[in-house]
Amino acid sequence: MKEKLHIIKIGGNSIDDEKLLNSFLDDFSSIKEPCILVHGGGKLATELSKKLNIETKLIDGRRITDAETLDIVVMVYAGLINKKIVALLQSKNCNAIGLCGADVNILQAKKRDDSTIDYGFVGNINQDAVSVNAIQQFIESGYAPVISPITHDGKGQLLNTNADTIASSLAVALSKIYEVNLYYCFEKNGVLLNIEDENSVLPTLDKNNYAELKRSGVISNGMIPKIDNAFDAIENGVSEVVISHASQLKNMISKKEYAGTRVI
Amino acid sequence: MKEKLHIIKIGGNSIDDEKLLNSFLDDFSSIKEPCILVHGGGKLATELSKKLNIETKLIDGRRITDAETLDIVVMVYAGLINKKIVALLQSKNCNAIGLCGADVNILQAKKRDDSTIDYGFVGNINQDAVSVNAIQQFIESGYAPVISPITHDGKGQLLNTNADTIASSLAVALSKIYEVNLYYCFEKNGVLLNIEDENSVLPTLDKNNYAELKRSGVISNGMIPKIDNAFDAIENGVSEVVISHASQLKNMISKKEYAGTRVI
Repeated sequence: MKEKLHIIKIGGNSIDDEKLLNSFLDDFSSIKEPCILVHGGGKLATELSKKLNIETKLIDGRRITDAETLDIVVMVYAGLINKKIVALLQSKNCNAIGLCGADVNILQAKKRDDSTIDYGFVGNINQDAVSVNAIQQFIESGYAPVISPITHDGKGQLLNTNADTIASSLAVALSKIYEVNLYYCFEKNGVLLNIEDENSVLPTLDKNNYAELKRSGVISNGMIPKIDNAFDAIENGVSEVVISHASQLKNMISKKEYAGTRVI
Repeated sequence: MKEKLHIIKIGGNSIDDEKLLNSFLDDFSSIKEPCILVHGGGKLATELSKKLNIETKLIDGRRITDAETLDIVVMVYAGLINKKIVALLQSKNCNAIGLCGADVNILQAKKRDDSTIDYGFVGNINQDAVSVNAIQQFIESGYAPVISPITHDGKGQLLNTNADTIASSLAVALSKIYEVNLYYCFEKNGVLLNIEDENSVLPTLDKNNYAELKRSGVISNGMIPKIDNAFDAIENGVSEVVISHASQLKNMISKKEYAGTRVI
């Protein structure tokens, strides 16, 4: 039987709010089984860009990562946020190691060129190149990898990559040797049928009701790539994928309580 | 017989100048024996502080690391510079891993309180707590640790620490299990008897001529802490300490050519 591995993605408000983050990391560090934390960026990168008068360029609502913006996200994601999380986890007796995709080549990516739009320094992960052995070695040493959403192309170029995608790519790659549970933790209780009502959590989501909910507009915008990543994981060997509130992590893992939305 | 380990500190202009850095990393990645790279910050942190209108506070000529400045140095040192170096090394077939002191707790420090001046978030390394085993494991896995001058206090606080001191602390700690050669690489050919003349390199420096050269003012300012760190290393088990130009690294290690200033 494969050993269990929890891969937890944390993003949005849970990073920006120091108190929420601290409480989340308390829960994370209390988990007895091996864990990997993947973090997004929160609002810090946008705030820093503003302060530096770097214009946020959008095409069709999608952010363009030009050279200046890449430097910002590398500084904020792989530097400030990653190392703050690692230092906090160390203080909670969790032996964290902060990594980006370039470190021991764990996540190689290819500059995105699958569309007519140039998104700049944005990378699509090369799924076959995920360094499963290096990550396994860290886990077997008792380390908790803390992974920032920065990858590299193997030719010396850092790239910006969506943190939800990093979490699902890692989950799929590691499911070859672990029984992987993937948790997308954020500031909502799960996939909501009514965005105004935190009690309207959809307990399970399958491809049929997903298609229906997209058609009716209940699921839209930012949730769609997250859910697409979740389906990608569950269809490619990951044992369980849950979308839930960051505060529910501990109960779900330690007490095996049912919370959030299970993607099936 | 102990295995040889090269610890190389790179700083100043060699980091700011992209061409110099690239050429230095070519040399670094060509070294066959195990290596650790410790990098400083260059001018990037100062430039970013200026752009953000964060005042550089000095007391008696020494920089104060307030909370805002700490965020800047964590972003620039542990983020941008560290990950750029790692990505470049990966492109040169060197399996680099970027680390700060908080990662797997390799370097713990204590907020400096040994003077009446509050230098802010600056840490003095706890020499007994250097995680020799974790670093040894990385080296035995064929990884090249790339270490940024950010430490932590074990209570969740990141701290700014002098990169020269980090290099000598690591060298001393690792000399228990390796035959450590420590190289301080910078933009000068070594310790110069005449700062205007790159050919005036002092071939060797011992405590006697050091005292004399300090008294006569030939060695002053920024060189003093570097040399103090060098003596600290050589007096505590490190096999060889050399202060030299970054461009001389390859010849010194691969061809065993004599260059720079040997501290004896």
